[in-house]
Amino acid sequence: MTNPVLVEVLRGGKVESRHEGSIAVADASGALVLSRGDVARPVFPRSAVKVMQALPLVESGAADAFGLDVKELALACASHSGEPEHAALARAVLARAGLEPDALECGAHWPTSQEATIRLARSGEVASALHNNCSGKHSGFLCGCRHMGLNHRGYVKIGHDYQRLIAATMEEVTGAAHREENSGTDGCSIPTYAVPLVNLATGFARLATGETLSAGRASAARRLFEACMAEPFYVAGTGRADTEMMEAGRGRVFTKVGAEGVYCGAIPELGLGFALKIDDGTGRGAEAAVAALLAHLLRDDEALSARFADMASVTLKNWNGIEVGEVRGLPVS
Amino acid sequence: MTNPVLVEVLRGGKVESRHEGSIAVADASGALVLSRGDVARPVFPRSAVKVMQALPLVESGAADAFGLDVKELALACASHSGEPEHAALARAVLARAGLEPDALECGAHWPTSQEATIRLARSGEVASALHNNCSGKHSGFLCGCRHMGLNHRGYVKIGHDYQRLIAATMEEVTGAAHREENSGTDGCSIPTYAVPLVNLATGFARLATGETLSAGRASAARRLFEACMAEPFYVAGTGRADTEMMEAGRGRVFTKVGAEGVYCGAIPELGLGFALKIDDGTGRGAEAAVAALLAHLLRDDEALSARFADMASVTLKNWNGIEVGEVRGLPVS
Repeated sequence: MTNPVLVEVLRGGKVESRHEGSIAVADASGALVLSRGDVARPVFPRSAVKVMQALPLVESGAADAFGLDVKELALACASHSGEPEHAALARAVLARAGLEPDALECGAHWPTSQEATIRLARSGEVASALHNNCSGKHSGFLCGCRHMGLNHRGYVKIGHDYQRLIAATMEEVTGAAHREENSGTDGCSIPTYAVPLVNLATGFARLATGETLSAGRASAARRLFEACMAEPFYVAGTGRADTEMMEAGRGRVFTKVGAEGVYCGAIPELGLGFALKIDDGTGRGAEAAVAALLAHLLRDDEALSARFADMASVTLKNWNGIEVGEVRGLPVS
Repeated sequence: MTNPVLVEVLRGGKVESRHEGSIAVADASGALVLSRGDVARPVFPRSAVKVMQALPLVESGAADAFGLDVKELALACASHSGEPEHAALARAVLARAGLEPDALECGAHWPTSQEATIRLARSGEVASALHNNCSGKHSGFLCGCRHMGLNHRGYVKIGHDYQRLIAATMEEVTGAAHREENSGTDGCSIPTYAVPLVNLATGFARLATGETLSAGRASAARRLFEACMAEPFYVAGTGRADTEMMEAGRGRVFTKVGAEGVYCGAIPELGLGFALKIDDGTGRGAEAAVAALLAHLLRDDEALSARFADMASVTLKNWNGIEVGEVRGLPVS
């Protein structure tokens, strides 16, 4: 089955490339409110579920024990750009747990922000694990391990107690199995589990509403959502889609990108969660598609809907700043 | 019409993403030898036709008048990585025509090679038009303008005499119209014309064989092909697909990548040209698909075919160097 085209890329007024994909929007009961393409096929959500992976940090009491503030909670759910503020905050979170950056097992890479990479190189520094876009999440894992008295060595492995706790949490939230059989290894070395989009959408609706969750988990989810929506720079970075969408949403919209064309999120006031996957794995496709989806879901608020419709259409400029084309998320209806 | 899946991306042994596309392989008469998907739909070839755009540089006598050597001719057909050797050679080509880098109208960008970007930033320099991946092609255009006595100001514009000459040349080579109606603006500001893959494949077969071309054009094409195959580092750069494929081909295979998932090339000994487009525009898809195609077309040479089959499968490693998946060009048969 071929999924529908969700995004077109135009040049000279002609379609140059296009992105197919599938979308699930669900409520906390698991009922599909909107569905495009195949929403039953398992998808690796990658970093789009970092907020789910951060639940044990709050539920265990680690976040309170180490006094993590709103920015630090946002960073624990982030795929950040490796800007100086992100790297510094990840270091600070580790310090709260009495750890140094060498405890991180996510691997080092240069900042995903080219500007941050150039600044870092100019200053004579080198890339470290703190610049890895997942360093905030991993710092959160390490806080959780320390608070729970777990040996943190090997905390990224699928058999480690902390990863088992995360998998069990995500099974409960999404209603889908998170086992070795449906696992792969993510870029930062932790397991990622392939589950249907409908389960991801349902899970985000539950986090957004608290429905079906224990009181402790509902409270933890609300706190993480609110942290991300309050400090979206710490979830992504300068000019990034998640930062701009959550800034526009002003506490009414939660979004989170994942690698390989995944986007998840929720609109708490509507009680809805969503998940989408661009089949070819491109980020530009996922960003345009999620903005078009949000323009539709928020259609009762004309001004906000128009903001997202604007974001669904990105003008392409060349190296001389000349407009040459457009990435256009097709309207959802 | 949906094109077939040409490339799969796997994680944990499961298909995570996939790339659809179309392929045309043709001889110089325009007869299709192999066809996958829609090869009649117009496609912007982008940088994949730089060797066609460089024909007037040689045909006009400019290359000889300015004494361009093999590396400089290769650079005139390049999408280079902006490594120091590339930027220095582009400067040298301009100097042969008595010009400075400020004559370039391609725009500036940091090297496409992250390592080259980091080195440049460390050295305190900034990105210039010389680092633009198209600077060699543009330096060639400027040599052509100077030799032909054309005012080079505005040489990138569709109405400039040099761009008209390129369009007329490409019309003859491909047999497809190159007009304002089917044009768009490329990343480096020159026009790009959407033409069917079958015409692009036919054009590359003609360049590879000289068939249907004037003696002067056939000679110019042979000279440019030989330069690229002899100096593939100057066509791309360290670790790049074109460099590795042409090094493996040892003068028997010409390949050239274009933006938005395009690949073109030729196998002169078989009298064949080819063109492919990944519908979603991703480079990883185009690279895996072209290697799988070459493994098929060169199947009579088991060792060389096996080299290309190896290149069609790229192991994905994460930031800790752990193997997490594979980009796999599906075998062509």
